[in-house]
Amino acid sequence: MATAARIFTAALVVIGDEILSGRTHDKNIAQIAAWLQVQGIRLKEVRVVADDTAAIVEAVNLLRARNDYLFTTGGIGPTHDDITVDAIAQAVGVPVVVHPEAQAILEDYYETRGGLTEARLRMARTPEGAALIPNRYNGAPGIRWGNVFIMAGVPSITAGMLDALSGQLEGGAPLLSETIGCWVGESEVADLLRRTEKAFETCQIGSYPFWGEGRTGANFVIRSVDAQDLAACVRALSEGLAAMDRPAVPGGI
Amino acid sequence: MATAARIFTAALVVIGDEILSGRTHDKNIAQIAAWLQVQGIRLKEVRVVADDTAAIVEAVNLLRARNDYLFTTGGIGPTHDDITVDAIAQAVGVPVVVHPEAQAILEDYYETRGGLTEARLRMARTPEGAALIPNRYNGAPGIRWGNVFIMAGVPSITAGMLDALSGQLEGGAPLLSETIGCWVGESEVADLLRRTEKAFETCQIGSYPFWGEGRTGANFVIRSVDAQDLAACVRALSEGLAAMDRPAVPGGI
Repeated sequence: MATAARIFTAALVVIGDEILSGRTHDKNIAQIAAWLQVQGIRLKEVRVVADDTAAIVEAVNLLRARNDYLFTTGGIGPTHDDITVDAIAQAVGVPVVVHPEAQAILEDYYETRGGLTEARLRMARTPEGAALIPNRYNGAPGIRWGNVFIMAGVPSITAGMLDALSGQLEGGAPLLSETIGCWVGESEVADLLRRTEKAFETCQIGSYPFWGEGRTGANFVIRSVDAQDLAACVRALSEGLAAMDRPAVPGGI
Repeated sequence: MATAARIFTAALVVIGDEILSGRTHDKNIAQIAAWLQVQGIRLKEVRVVADDTAAIVEAVNLLRARNDYLFTTGGIGPTHDDITVDAIAQAVGVPVVVHPEAQAILEDYYETRGGLTEARLRMARTPEGAALIPNRYNGAPGIRWGNVFIMAGVPSITAGMLDALSGQLEGGAPLLSETIGCWVGESEVADLLRRTEKAFETCQIGSYPFWGEGRTGANFVIRSVDAQDLAACVRALSEGLAAMDRPAVPGGI
């Protein structure tokens, strides 16, 4: 069982030339990041790599070793540029096999859709010893091998796979956060932020400036695993802003 | 001068807890990726790391060594969580100094805005030996140190810095691309794609499936540095699709 002190971490490897070329705007980083927060798992690092075996192997092997969980997105479709399964099998040192359960799922799915061709059967291939992650959209499952979770590149399909995994992974105390906004230049409150963060050991304060309505403002996001500390830190920061005649806006601007 | 054969590469390090928490959806990856394409520079890898010195140092030192250019975004504002300059100075092994030109720019900018406070002066700090990248939005410049380009986290500010750098970096032959769409399941054409790519040595074909109007389709992106090869590959793939009674849609769907 997890104790309050144990922090669970994850990394994400986004696989795809289309992200690196700027053609496709990635949506999986934000989606997986937000989902992990709810599971009490901290996303420590993301890498975007090309459809290139050596690049995938390097990222997967480093990041699965230094995190509790490693997620990948992309490259598990039926075409020649879908090399994720082969690369991860190579990374973990097992052969690629046709997973009988995945094959049965695809046979069923394609029964009324022209049958299970050789290309479609590629989507039943997994590193040996894998478990499947259900995909309620179009059959082809995600793959779990050890602490590696192999997800789709298409964000709506990955969303379904994340739903299937919700509550299944051991996590720690979720990182709580509260946001307050203020019409103030962040440079005016830099000292206040630094002092306040220092006073609350478990808290981090992030400062995110913006410009709008012809004015300068910032949102301050306070994060902590301790709810009491979090509330006290938010109170202290709000009082500090009020003392400067810059009232805080709870929830942010 | 670049020759046709030389490929110039870049990497990007996105710095920020707010991306890893899912609070902020990154826009800089796509923006910088697309800009680099135009400069004839290939984006090889992206990493998203926390506001954490060790994580920044590790990523910067590995990626600047194995690429022609390294870009970073985020963490160059006036607040305590803006640690990018210090981390990169540590990575490259030089002290942090107040850059006189940056100080002059900020003094000018803040003259009518409450003066240059100590917090604001933080934005004039650079690794020793740096050059500045103009920021037409709010004074605080980006920083160039060797092959490292330190950019803002706010996408509109980074856009201005990229404009200032346009045409300034040596690049190779730009990677050309053409897209054709088709109402076809990608699994039906997997063999055609594989054969066609093999027939044109300089070309890569990416396959990006989608679902819409109750049908299955895919866009195929063909990339090459050779314009003739690219055109021939597009023609071959289009003919292959036509032979299957699946006409290609030039430009994609």
